[in-house]
Amino acid sequence: YIEWTKEELVAEKARLEQEFAEVKAKGLNLNISRGKPAAAQLDLTEGMLTVLSKNEDTFAEDGTDCRNYGVLTGIPEARKLIGDICEVPAENVIVYGNASLTIMFDTVARSMTHGVMGNTPWCKLDKVKFLCPVPGYDRHFKVTEFFGIEMINVPMTPQGPDMDMVEKLVSEDPAIKGIWCVPKYSNPQGYTYSEETVKRFARLKPAAPDFRIYWDNAYSVHHLYDGEEKQDFLLEILEECAKAGNPDIVYKFTSTSKISFPGSGIAAVAASKANLDDFRKYMTVQTIGHDKLNQLRHVRFFKNLDGVHAHMSKHAAILRPKFEMVESTLEKELGGLGIGSWTTPKGGYFISFESMDGCAKAIVAKAKEAGVVMTGAGATYPYGKDPKDSNIRIAPSFPPIDELAKAAEVFVVCVKLASVEKLLAE
Amino acid sequence: YIEWTKEELVAEKARLEQEFAEVKAKGLNLNISRGKPAAAQLDLTEGMLTVLSKNEDTFAEDGTDCRNYGVLTGIPEARKLIGDICEVPAENVIVYGNASLTIMFDTVARSMTHGVMGNTPWCKLDKVKFLCPVPGYDRHFKVTEFFGIEMINVPMTPQGPDMDMVEKLVSEDPAIKGIWCVPKYSNPQGYTYSEETVKRFARLKPAAPDFRIYWDNAYSVHHLYDGEEKQDFLLEILEECAKAGNPDIVYKFTSTSKISFPGSGIAAVAASKANLDDFRKYMTVQTIGHDKLNQLRHVRFFKNLDGVHAHMSKHAAILRPKFEMVESTLEKELGGLGIGSWTTPKGGYFISFESMDGCAKAIVAKAKEAGVVMTGAGATYPYGKDPKDSNIRIAPSFPPIDELAKAAEVFVVCVKLASVEKLLAE
Repeated sequence: YIEWTKEELVAEKARLEQEFAEVKAKGLNLNISRGKPAAAQLDLTEGMLTVLSKNEDTFAEDGTDCRNYGVLTGIPEARKLIGDICEVPAENVIVYGNASLTIMFDTVARSMTHGVMGNTPWCKLDKVKFLCPVPGYDRHFKVTEFFGIEMINVPMTPQGPDMDMVEKLVSEDPAIKGIWCVPKYSNPQGYTYSEETVKRFARLKPAAPDFRIYWDNAYSVHHLYDGEEKQDFLLEILEECAKAGNPDIVYKFTSTSKISFPGSGIAAVAASKANLDDFRKYMTVQTIGHDKLNQLRHVRFFKNLDGVHAHMSKHAAILRPKFEMVESTLEKELGGLGIGSWTTPKGGYFISFESMDGCAKAIVAKAKEAGVVMTGAGATYPYGKDPKDSNIRIAPSFPPIDELAKAAEVFVVCVKLASVEKLLAE
Repeated sequence: YIEWTKEELVAEKARLEQEFAEVKAKGLNLNISRGKPAAAQLDLTEGMLTVLSKNEDTFAEDGTDCRNYGVLTGIPEARKLIGDICEVPAENVIVYGNASLTIMFDTVARSMTHGVMGNTPWCKLDKVKFLCPVPGYDRHFKVTEFFGIEMINVPMTPQGPDMDMVEKLVSEDPAIKGIWCVPKYSNPQGYTYSEETVKRFARLKPAAPDFRIYWDNAYSVHHLYDGEEKQDFLLEILEECAKAGNPDIVYKFTSTSKISFPGSGIAAVAASKANLDDFRKYMTVQTIGHDKLNQLRHVRFFKNLDGVHAHMSKHAAILRPKFEMVESTLEKELGGLGIGSWTTPKGGYFISFESMDGCAKAIVAKAKEAGVVMTGAGATYPYGKDPKDSNIRIAPSFPPIDELAKAAEVFVVCVKLASVEKLLAE
């Protein structure tokens, strides 16, 4: 399109408007907005429903009655399983309830009211700032926004956030207390931080003693392909931080939301003992303990890390064709037009689409008009403000593949139409 | 003992010391410290483990896939069931995860960082105070202590807190932002607030617009006896508050922790729409939704309020003999001695014992020496400080009845010995 004449574009616009009208007339009602597993994926975990079926099944290895009160930090075998998933020893893991988002929220809330490891509570400070690699996860940004924390955009690259910028800002500004990271199969681009990026994170020299890396390892075992050569590799950060003399600089979050059940998984934080002691002081007042029966269900169902990997391979078999179909539709319809680019991740839940500047909102609005709900344009940026209005998150997981195909067809028509309109307006 | 001569007391002391030595020699290891249901009670809920057994069982009445993300405030049928348990309409209920303590903690935390319904966040105020009916629940007091909230003791009576004092303080001091209440079968005395008390609460005219009654209705259906004439009755407070023109003054908390599984129940808050909107603003950032499978399990297992009552009657059959045994031991061994009094509740989880002033710590220490762990003396007061050192909480629920009998025998010996020592020291 970029090199077309005005006349050619006008003709193309008329053709696309016709196409758009036809699509609209179908009265579609599709949703590719959220990273929700499909029902077929959830069906894979049916066995977990009854893995504890008798009273005598409800006791942990150490004899704990998982039905009753107690065990603040999770039953030992659940800490072990989660530790294996996120590559840290069980003693560095605390298992919570059903959502890692809640752990992150509580961590920020605790830092506001009680401070981090003895430092001044953030609510007593004039200014608190977080770095936000962009595009990123909207729910992260909502947490920091909710607590009035100023967010600073840091551009993402295929190797991770712009580390020159991160190092400079973190070392100079003591008001910067944290950074949101999705280090593997990132949301929304599906990028995995390089070894160098992880090492540079581990070696950060923050001006603030209470600066923490919020390492949301949401997609650690969420590959789309079997075989290590087709999977991304992420260096384990807790060990790197310890080696670099920075053992307390990172909180690693994880959950089984996209392994077992999104609403009924188990979530966890992994960190140094000093950090976990800080968590424990809060938890001991906040709760008598999380749902241990559900922790035990996970251990009995998956058994161990091999069980998790085997299970994730079944998820991948459902997800992979969806990703490949969307990518091939994008390539077939938009390849070479110069009006958009997209990522082709090897895992995670999203494809990130970059339109021409100033077109994302128009594309998403058109898609909505045609019955396809997408993640709101701008949602991948703090405050919902994408400065270039160009990023769109595509979430192919939830709809059945035939519906997803229809949604992808609608999407490319909307991209083309919005782009032509933009080019004509220039 | 009170009227005995010094010589008689000295002889009695020698006899009791001998008795104590014999008890100690048994090397007991008993625990009557926490209000934990016994394993036999938990066995009653076995059917809940498998009530959802197939993929097709996991859908709510409105078609929601309970395995997936979403539904912030709980599935409709769970809100209905909890609403029936706590006598409010489903739309005034939000169902959470496994612990009402966590909801209360989060409510205080939210008030600290974000304020109550648009009022100044408490963390921006010089002073925040809570009223604490005493004796009361230690975990309530820990929450307010953790946030640096000043706690003011209000004496309990068999009709509830001293309402003259509550009315005076609340109407005069705008720093008073809340009061902790366990209105039915109170922890630890087992008292139920009278109708007049509830009405006076509903008609409070607080100086602070963001004053709230924290109404922890933990034992609403936890009777020890069948038949309404043998059960305490508590007036429903939300309706009374609405009638009194004070619809927003109360948060009512409840859970199924002592109905189904203590670690894996469902918890809820009931309040006015305006208050729940305040909760929702926070929740929408904190979580994508709580464990809906567990909500659905509860509905499928109990079916309705009648199912809950029938189930609680089975709990009562296990708890009742324990309470009666402890009470009869106290009566037989201590009745008429003038060295202690105790409550005889018709529900809940505790018996409250009042020793002679200055004896509670000594009694609990002696019990521990003899192998019986009790709730720490002072725990029923804010900051762990019982000004008269006289209140001891007895939790008869957890041990099997033969062990409980041994613990009760130890306890009465300790009471007698500590009292005689006290009388001799005066």
